[in-house]
Amino acid sequence: MTPNTIRYGFLGLGIMGRAMATNLIRAGFDVTVWNRTAERCAPLVALGARQAATPAEVAARCDITFAILADPAAARETCFGAEGVLAGIGGNRGYIDMSTVDDQTARDISEAIAARGGRFLEAPVSGTKKPAEDGTLVILAGGDRSLFDDAGPALDKLGKKRMHLGDVGQGARMKLVVNMIMGSMLTAFSEGLSLGMKGNLDGAQILEVLEAGAMACPMFKGKGPMLLAGDYSTSFPLKHMQKDLRLAIALSEELGQTLHTAAATNEIFKRALIAGHGEADIAAVHSIIR
Amino acid sequence: MTPNTIRYGFLGLGIMGRAMATNLIRAGFDVTVWNRTAERCAPLVALGARQAATPAEVAARCDITFAILADPAAARETCFGAEGVLAGIGGNRGYIDMSTVDDQTARDISEAIAARGGRFLEAPVSGTKKPAEDGTLVILAGGDRSLFDDAGPALDKLGKKRMHLGDVGQGARMKLVVNMIMGSMLTAFSEGLSLGMKGNLDGAQILEVLEAGAMACPMFKGKGPMLLAGDYSTSFPLKHMQKDLRLAIALSEELGQTLHTAAATNEIFKRALIAGHGEADIAAVHSIIR
Amino acid sequence: MTPNTIRYGFLGLGIMGRAMATNLIRAGFDVTVWNRTAERCAPLVALGARQAATPAEVAARCDITFAILADPAAARETCFGAEGVLAGIGGNRGYIDMSTVDDQTARDISEAIAARGGRFLEAPVSGTKKPAEDGTLVILAGGDRSLFDDAGPALDKLGKKRMHLGDVGQGARMKLVVNMIMGSMLTAFSEGLSLGMKGNLDGAQILEVLEAGAMACPMFKGKGPMLLAGDYSTSFPLKHMQKDLRLAIALSEELGQTLHTAAATNEIFKRALIAGHGEADIAAVHSIIR
Amino acid sequence: MTPNTIRYGFLGLGIMGRAMATNLIRAGFDVTVWNRTAERCAPLVALGARQAATPAEVAARCDITFAILADPAAARETCFGAEGVLAGIGGNRGYIDMSTVDDQTARDISEAIAARGGRFLEAPVSGTKKPAEDGTLVILAGGDRSLFDDAGPALDKLGKKRMHLGDVGQGARMKLVVNMIMGSMLTAFSEGLSLGMKGNLDGAQILEVLEAGAMACPMFKGKGPMLLAGDYSTSFPLKHMQKDLRLAIALSEELGQTLHTAAATNEIFKRALIAGHGEADIAAVHSIIR
Repeated sequence: MTPNTIRYGFLGLGIMGRAMATNLIRAGFDVTVWNRTAERCAPLVALGARQAATPAEVAARCDITFAILADPAAARETCFGAEGVLAGIGGNRGYIDMSTVDDQTARDISEAIAARGGRFLEAPVSGTKKPAEDGTLVILAGGDRSLFDDAGPALDKLGKKRMHLGDVGQGARMKLVVNMIMGSMLTAFSEGLSLGMKGNLDGAQILEVLEAGAMACPMFKGKGPMLLAGDYSTSFPLKHMQKDLRLAIALSEELGQTLHTAAATNEIFKRALIAGHGEADIAAVHSIIR
Repeated sequence: MTPNTIRYGFLGLGIMGRAMATNLIRAGFDVTVWNRTAERCAPLVALGARQAATPAEVAARCDITFAILADPAAARETCFGAEGVLAGIGGNRGYIDMSTVDDQTARDISEAIAARGGRFLEAPVSGTKKPAEDGTLVILAGGDRSLFDDAGPALDKLGKKRMHLGDVGQGARMKLVVNMIMGSMLTAFSEGLSLGMKGNLDGAQILEVLEAGAMACPMFKGKGPMLLAGDYSTSFPLKHMQKDLRLAIALSEELGQTLHTAAATNEIFKRALIAGHGEADIAAVHSIIR
Repeated sequence: MTPNTIRYGFLGLGIMGRAMATNLIRAGFDVTVWNRTAERCAPLVALGARQAATPAEVAARCDITFAILADPAAARETCFGAEGVLAGIGGNRGYIDMSTVDDQTARDISEAIAARGGRFLEAPVSGTKKPAEDGTLVILAGGDRSLFDDAGPALDKLGKKRMHLGDVGQGARMKLVVNMIMGSMLTAFSEGLSLGMKGNLDGAQILEVLEAGAMACPMFKGKGPMLLAGDYSTSFPLKHMQKDLRLAIALSEELGQTLHTAAATNEIFKRALIAGHGEADIAAVHSIIR
Repeated sequence: MTPNTIRYGFLGLGIMGRAMATNLIRAGFDVTVWNRTAERCAPLVALGARQAATPAEVAARCDITFAILADPAAARETCFGAEGVLAGIGGNRGYIDMSTVDDQTARDISEAIAARGGRFLEAPVSGTKKPAEDGTLVILAGGDRSLFDDAGPALDKLGKKRMHLGDVGQGARMKLVVNMIMGSMLTAFSEGLSLGMKGNLDGAQILEVLEAGAMACPMFKGKGPMLLAGDYSTSFPLKHMQKDLRLAIALSEELGQTLHTAAATNEIFKRALIAGHGEADIAAVHSIIR
């Protein structure tokens, strides 16, 4: 495949998708877009994109089609629905689903695409709106290696890092591992802040000491002031974190791994969920601990 | 006090103390050194330091005397022993103990110094040999505020950051809070690595994803390869971490703070200690989890 | 329904079923038996039972048919298979499944029986071989209340206690709750024994003190000597307990209940499972703790 | 020593002591009583007891002196105070302290008694007012074995069981082990009840099933209805249980024993304490869990 002649498709122009497709167009790639609500295509067409009427049309016309949909249901509909990707894919053309979905959805789509003679890659991302706009996402891919390579020039415009992690399902698994560590780190952080402040240490000074040491990280820097202020405005909903902890523990049962810290963390997040903080940011776990 | 006329004393020329005193001398300060084994003074005298025969002599001669001793027993002996600091302190002169000691030791020394008319500051540090040499320690001070200010020019040569945290005891308390967070973060990290690797993710790739995200921190960068390699060569002995977790939990009983995550973490560190990893690095907790 | 004219069926003559059917026959009830391996019927026929060739035949001929099968798969096959219960049930006749199965299996069977005009009761039991022989099981029923009443005379020969707990599924749920408490009690017991013995208390004396106090229970009396002797000969396989803990925690996620103690217990049982004690008795969790 | 000629002393006539001394007198023993508030002696003198003016007088006059005081401070005062036991003990006479005290208090008293030529036994009891009246306490003794034997006839009137557990300190340690198991059992019980009731099981039925099975114990029978009713009237204050959990965990640090279940339980009791239930019965932990 010669990179500069590749025709790209892009399905799903929500907050993430619009920013990502824009980056591809601005980088000079040939991009055909589709969105369930067609008017969302206009700004991208204004930037030079082509527009298609259905996912099937995109998948038939383009060498490599990206998608980033809201949830597993949308990802399934876009693939399996009437006029879906399956109806257009084939001839070794590629489909890269960047939605965050469960293992089973990823595998079902993967098998169907392969059965039609297409290639498939799951590629969930780490990062939200800002990194999507800046092209600094981290792309966690699993599936067809040749497709990962062929799509490289485009993926490198979408993210600052892209990793091929193995078979379909390994991308989702990596997200789970990373989120599980995040959950435990956050409760540890909250416990430390709370203990220190009850011991008459100044919260801002605790953050300052952490920032100067071996545990300095963007999360403590970002969430720290939120915890101190009791500001739990949502960027990662607490209920999703609790779900990921639950799934990580379920995975550990299957793989034979004890998770004492994560299991204790999960109970704390459950308590926060029961207390009604499910839609708030994960920072709201602090309201249960402090 | 006029900074450039201050006479500084320095007691204790072990790995940390030698590096720190050297930094003070090189910065042009007037420094008088003492060490229990006198020959250790020679290299510093060669750099321009004066030498004294006893802690009492240093404390009597200098405006501000620093000390960094091996443990609480050495800190007590250097202060209370025959020819100790107490025998020389007074006249509003200052004593800054940078040793890591328990609350009680810090308070006992503080009271005795004040009773003799001196000023006292506890100032344990975050950081080990390299930051001591580079002058990039983080100094966690508690006690006499005027002494913290007067010693500022010298403290700023020893560390990249110095913080005044309140009364004597608050410095030690801050170290406890920070180390407790570190312990839980390390078990969370180890659990995540282990779960991922049992799920056929590549360990180095997990580290790479973490490094690219919101949890990127010097600790994961430093300990990550050690965990993967099973290299537990000691920089922070596991038994000290377990002791700090125990003390943090004891503090939480006193202050009324639940610590579900830290309590689970403590049990894991206990298991590692029972398994014989007390002298190994804290990274050895991974051998219990993986 | 006149109790003394009721015709009873009994499907499944394993360790439990044979003992239970024997009790019914000895009590003078009219019992028709079936077993997948037909020769197992002989001893019961010798005691006065009738024999049938298929579950369908039993369900067609008897007013109330009991079943106690090895697992959910066997329970499904006996109901849904060719010549299964479904093929004979109807006319308001009753089917009482005493197997330990999951909620879904119980509900699927329940709905199918009802659709054919039969009545259904799930009735898992608490107790194993000895109580089955002695007729001292505890019967945890869910489903058709009139069937629970009609079968009363027979159920009272099988168990010392029978309870109607609500809809189909509530019997299984009660077993889960009870087993979860059992798991946590066992780890608590093991931790106490281990701590005491490391503190030079005599194990047998610890058991003696427990036996004399408010926590005296058949489980401590039965498992205590096993723990001291390291005898983990199986009466309740550890892997089943870990599964029940997992299911209880899953249920708690659905119902909004924190389970800090059970979650910690589950991780200990997971560790025991990973260490290879899955087929041993639940007492083998002690090998991980002591 | 000939049992029927032994003169017994009894110090401390609170709720427990009065009942216990009464049992000794009614059994025909020669008993000399003392109480800090002297008028409390009258009912016992009416039953046939002699009365003494000071602990020293009792210890000098009697072969074996029992004491049951309110707390460690009272136990120390009664032994070490002016006119205390120490001033009268000697000549191989015995002192049996049945108060619940810490290890150090027991050892201090033990050493002082031995230095004066007396014999000492610690003998804390399991059981409260009712068993004290009924003579059905469980006596957990540590210390002088010959004294344990010589006092046998009297101890057998005070309790249904008496055990010699080793050196002074082992009695207190046994109480700690037993209470730690009790704490974890209670949280497990509360979690099970709560989970079941959220799952629409009837609380009374859960208790009934437990009562019929392997976990049936006086504690579940006694506390169960309290939990259901939210009745937390105090028989064992929650704050004392949390203290015992803390001490058991401290002991486990010393002896090298992991306590995952007890550590999780301790955090739950801490939460109950923080929520203000310290003076309520241990049953009040349910208010945090349900």
